[in-house]
Amino acid sequence: MLSIIAAGMLMMTPPPPAPLSSAQILAHEDTIWLRPHPENTIYMDMPTGRVIISLGQEIAPLNRERVKELVRAGAFNGAAIDRVQENYVVQWSAREADGVEDIVGEVEGDRGAVGSPRLLPFGDTYAPQVGFIGPLPAAQDGKHVWLAHCYAMVGVGRGYGLDSGNGAELYVVVGQAPRHLDRNITLVGKVLMGMEHLTSLPRGDGELGFYTEDQEKAGIVRVTVAADLPEDERSHIEYMSTSGTMWDRWLEVRANRVNDGWFTHSHGAVDLCNIPVPVREVSGKE
Amino acid sequence: MLSIIAAGMLMMTPPPPAPLSSAQILAHEDTIWLRPHPENTIYMDMPTGRVIISLGQEIAPLNRERVKELVRAGAFNGAAIDRVQENYVVQWSAREADGVEDIVGEVEGDRGAVGSPRLLPFGDTYAPQVGFIGPLPAAQDGKHVWLAHCYAMVGVGRGYGLDSGNGAELYVVVGQAPRHLDRNITLVGKVLMGMEHLTSLPRGDGELGFYTEDQEKAGIVRVTVAADLPEDERSHIEYMSTSGTMWDRWLEVRANRVNDGWFTHSHGAVDLCNIPVPVREVSGKE
Repeated sequence: MLSIIAAGMLMMTPPPPAPLSSAQILAHEDTIWLRPHPENTIYMDMPTGRVIISLGQEIAPLNRERVKELVRAGAFNGAAIDRVQENYVVQWSAREADGVEDIVGEVEGDRGAVGSPRLLPFGDTYAPQVGFIGPLPAAQDGKHVWLAHCYAMVGVGRGYGLDSGNGAELYVVVGQAPRHLDRNITLVGKVLMGMEHLTSLPRGDGELGFYTEDQEKAGIVRVTVAADLPEDERSHIEYMSTSGTMWDRWLEVRANRVNDGWFTHSHGAVDLCNIPVPVREVSGKE
Repeated sequence: MLSIIAAGMLMMTPPPPAPLSSAQILAHEDTIWLRPHPENTIYMDMPTGRVIISLGQEIAPLNRERVKELVRAGAFNGAAIDRVQENYVVQWSAREADGVEDIVGEVEGDRGAVGSPRLLPFGDTYAPQVGFIGPLPAAQDGKHVWLAHCYAMVGVGRGYGLDSGNGAELYVVVGQAPRHLDRNITLVGKVLMGMEHLTSLPRGDGELGFYTEDQEKAGIVRVTVAADLPEDERSHIEYMSTSGTMWDRWLEVRANRVNDGWFTHSHGAVDLCNIPVPVREVSGKE
């Protein structure tokens, strides 16, 4: 390809690299994989296996710290899943939440640019700009930055008052992204692995998917902060970095799936919540 | 509100109607409810209950008719769910599909304006315009009309060739809308009721969520066309009409959820796949 640069010199520019398939990007030596920090990683051990939650590092610090306090106090050990609403949320409550004060303030994550998402080159129905902060989907409007209610995102329940959440009631999105919840309730993180231990639970038989009988509820064995566990009880996983050249190529193939063989039509764009952030198990120590 | 009309006369125009909440619209006497036609309704009876599928009436006629032929031949009776992939699809195959010929042609529903969606006033990442054809989400670009891969949509599996589907392998979307599949594979309808009988199944342990052992698979008791059953074996449901004034008000409240009380922030827009088409059970005969 020929192009004329400002100085008027004629030079050769390299052709754009050939598109890579999703599988090629996952296997590529230049793809960057990151390990979630153990201090910001929560393990929720269910009877069927482990749910691994990564907490946001830059957004919603009050809620994040309260959740970690409750986890470290053992408040979720032996608790139960009390709500499974089809195509919406799975929700659970701390066992010992009496006396836990509400977190004063507005919905966190809507307080100003405390984080800076790596933006996508695609449009969005709900926000002027969207992208990722680490593995977490986020949005911004020039004044505010907030996390986005995509599948697997974890939030802190609240009642009618904006400051009526205390970290003792947590939910995870299990269906089509309920983006209308964005800026209305505080998200604190994302399930990176183990969603199937929550999504395959029987749906609650009551209003809004709450169980009406205690014995229907799935039990939570134990909830811990990864940093508090000995090395051999930790799960070793890593997620694809959402910045850098290979992430750009990941976005490219997710928007142009004809590069993945089976597809015959590409749309040239992809929804924020339809972009998977790949996660893989790794062996060895952190 | 005062406005000046072309003739120069001053007249009063009525103020816009006060916004209604979601609950008020569902209960409103002007809201139109429609019963799916029994000839285009499929019942898939699972051990835990009935899945009710409404087939599209205007799009993908070849695939729709093939599916009905197979259902009427009893090909899905005693078949099994062979794939449950987290945040993607649940899939099943006809028990007696030998000798069933592939459906010749391109992906149906991408062949020209055979249907005409009632358009939404909101943007979309994947298509210039989106809306609903009856209860089914759809998209168009001025030349083509196609159904959209939203939660609960039912499609006909295919292999690598565009004409390698034969109606004997069906899937339903169970997570975030995989809209990248739009125009790549043929959708034929939507589950209007009973998704929980599919979504709460254990995830498949093999590649792409396929089960590796037959005994893991949930059995399908019987699949029938509603019109073929006696009245007392039919399910009586109706869905909200996706045209008319009350549908417009439904779109209005789904884009402006502050009218629903708990919410404090509205986005002024809503994604095609995040607009529920309400469905309710009714008593009495059709």
